[in-house]
Amino acid sequence: MTATMTTGTVPTGSAATEGLDALARRCLAEAHGFVSERAAEHFSGRAEGALAETALPEFVAGGKCLRPLFAYVGWRCGQPESGAAIRAVAALELLHCFALVQDDVMDGSPLRRGRPALHVRFTRWHEEQGWAGSASRFGESAAILFGDLFLVWSEQLLRESGLTAGQLARGWVHYDAMRTELAVGQLADLVNDARALPSWDTVLDVLRRKSGNYTVRRPLEFGAALAGCGPELTAGLAEFGGLVGEAFQLRDDLLGVFGDPTVTGKPAGQDLRDRKASSVVVLAAAMAGRRRQAAFTELLELPTIDDDAVSRWRELIVATGARERMGELIRERADKALAAIDPAVVPRHAADLLATLAARCTERDR
Amino acid sequence: MTATMTTGTVPTGSAATEGLDALARRCLAEAHGFVSERAAEHFSGRAEGALAETALPEFVAGGKCLRPLFAYVGWRCGQPESGAAIRAVAALELLHCFALVQDDVMDGSPLRRGRPALHVRFTRWHEEQGWAGSASRFGESAAILFGDLFLVWSEQLLRESGLTAGQLARGWVHYDAMRTELAVGQLADLVNDARALPSWDTVLDVLRRKSGNYTVRRPLEFGAALAGCGPELTAGLAEFGGLVGEAFQLRDDLLGVFGDPTVTGKPAGQDLRDRKASSVVVLAAAMAGRRRQAAFTELLELPTIDDDAVSRWRELIVATGARERMGELIRERADKALAAIDPAVVPRHAADLLATLAARCTERDR
Repeated sequence: MTATMTTGTVPTGSAATEGLDALARRCLAEAHGFVSERAAEHFSGRAEGALAETALPEFVAGGKCLRPLFAYVGWRCGQPESGAAIRAVAALELLHCFALVQDDVMDGSPLRRGRPALHVRFTRWHEEQGWAGSASRFGESAAILFGDLFLVWSEQLLRESGLTAGQLARGWVHYDAMRTELAVGQLADLVNDARALPSWDTVLDVLRRKSGNYTVRRPLEFGAALAGCGPELTAGLAEFGGLVGEAFQLRDDLLGVFGDPTVTGKPAGQDLRDRKASSVVVLAAAMAGRRRQAAFTELLELPTIDDDAVSRWRELIVATGARERMGELIRERADKALAAIDPAVVPRHAADLLATLAARCTERDR
Repeated sequence: MTATMTTGTVPTGSAATEGLDALARRCLAEAHGFVSERAAEHFSGRAEGALAETALPEFVAGGKCLRPLFAYVGWRCGQPESGAAIRAVAALELLHCFALVQDDVMDGSPLRRGRPALHVRFTRWHEEQGWAGSASRFGESAAILFGDLFLVWSEQLLRESGLTAGQLARGWVHYDAMRTELAVGQLADLVNDARALPSWDTVLDVLRRKSGNYTVRRPLEFGAALAGCGPELTAGLAEFGGLVGEAFQLRDDLLGVFGDPTVTGKPAGQDLRDRKASSVVVLAAAMAGRRRQAAFTELLELPTIDDDAVSRWRELIVATGARERMGELIRERADKALAAIDPAVVPRHAADLLATLAARCTERDR
């Protein structure tokens, strides 16, 4: 993670960075431990569970715990450090595992975190076992089922976290909203992919609902609710979260086109190869003007997107000015988000963590 | 539902039948109402949600509420009638919707409850909208997401049922076991399908873990736990539930081969067409003897299973004696189950309901 800041308004606090890294490790250990126990309980000694017993904990171990971090900062706005709260927010990492595993099946993504996606691993495993039937069908079905298990275990980890019934009662509404919006947002995404280029407003709307809310705003609200924070504090966190979430996804879309595969763990230009109508493509289309419209249409209609086509796509997007404009849109949101944190309302230690997390989300390379 | 009893030990009580029918309607109304509200909240006014807003409540409305009925009888072993308990057990119907919708995608089943399966409906809808991309991929992905929503909403309905925190706390362990075993059992089923004919013991083991426990035993234990029933009562229910659950699935497997499509709502000989290594096929293989082995091998190796092949399969299974033996195995389990209900421990009204439900499970035509 880079410590170089470019906006000038974000503190570089290495104490905050170290604290967040240690926290991420603790969250991941909780999520990993919970899944290891469940996987051993249900798969140990069963032929069909041999790979699942190791593959599911491994999958959890690869996470960055971004959503638990935001949720825990929400918690720290109103409460002291707490092991139970760490377990509770770790539930969001398992929820994220659910989303990743099933999204990869739906999108047919071959790679995740620099390794074969879970459905690909189970497809190959089926082939190795020499079982009859379609290996890819098995791999996809198994991955869907493991996604289901992550969804179940997420809720179970939260419920069994050790937080009091009163604390949990305040958090459920936000947790339920996250879970539901995730599925509803993915449905919108399926339709968005399948359509011709959507409008910029539609792209922003999906991006906000699916990724923005889910990654930053909802986790912050969830953590703050568990901690019993008041409405003024929560409103500030929600505004901050909405903006950082949008910036996070805009950055994600930039990485989907320009990201370095050795850093992102995904193929170069993945979103272009998937013909995703992502924000950067839609913005480039809007900025292309009449002169570049022909080149644009030609690329959109190519039967296959190979390395050469990815290069041409990238050059065209840069030439329209969309890449630079995306950077501006991201910085605008990051700056506005930091301004939404009122030092009179948000405790200093939490504000530092929020600023560091905002920088991670908007300047990340992976 | 037939009122003709064949075992002689099962009371025909029409009061019990009427009570159960009324209860099933109330459970279904709770589940349907909950899903209607959620679907309207999340899909109303959204292009991609237009069909989901009506299709999800419709799907719920087609259920038989078998698992909620068992759970409620478990509840009634220790507590009086309760609207909150009805809402709580209705959660099991939404859990079942989750399982059906996703299983149909994994099995590629075209029909459910006499209508196109949910993924088929959404595939056709995608075609009608004229959207780009693979319609079947969209239909399957959408159905997986709706399954996820049913899974989330099930837990939410239970948590918000109105039962006290203390009552719920006793139920979670059973609810969690059901959810997890469902996914773990489906994984075993995928492997069982893909293998050459498994052993009879393997078939019985999968059948017990996946369907038997899930349909009867776990719901009974769950309801009894919510009601705070003691260990002696619960042990009797567990024994009864294990046996009736096995009989239920054996009956299900018989219907998968011999069921009347106008009653089951599924194509005739569906399990044969799917090349499912179900109990009846495995038993027939074991009973075929050397004389019928050639006919058996020939049918197993047919490239496609058409109507004629289904007829030949059925004749062969009858000729081996496996159909009749299946009937005996079902009756043996039903009789043993009823004997496990100790009148000194299980209240009379609950015992009547259990006997009626056992008959429904083991003598049903659909």
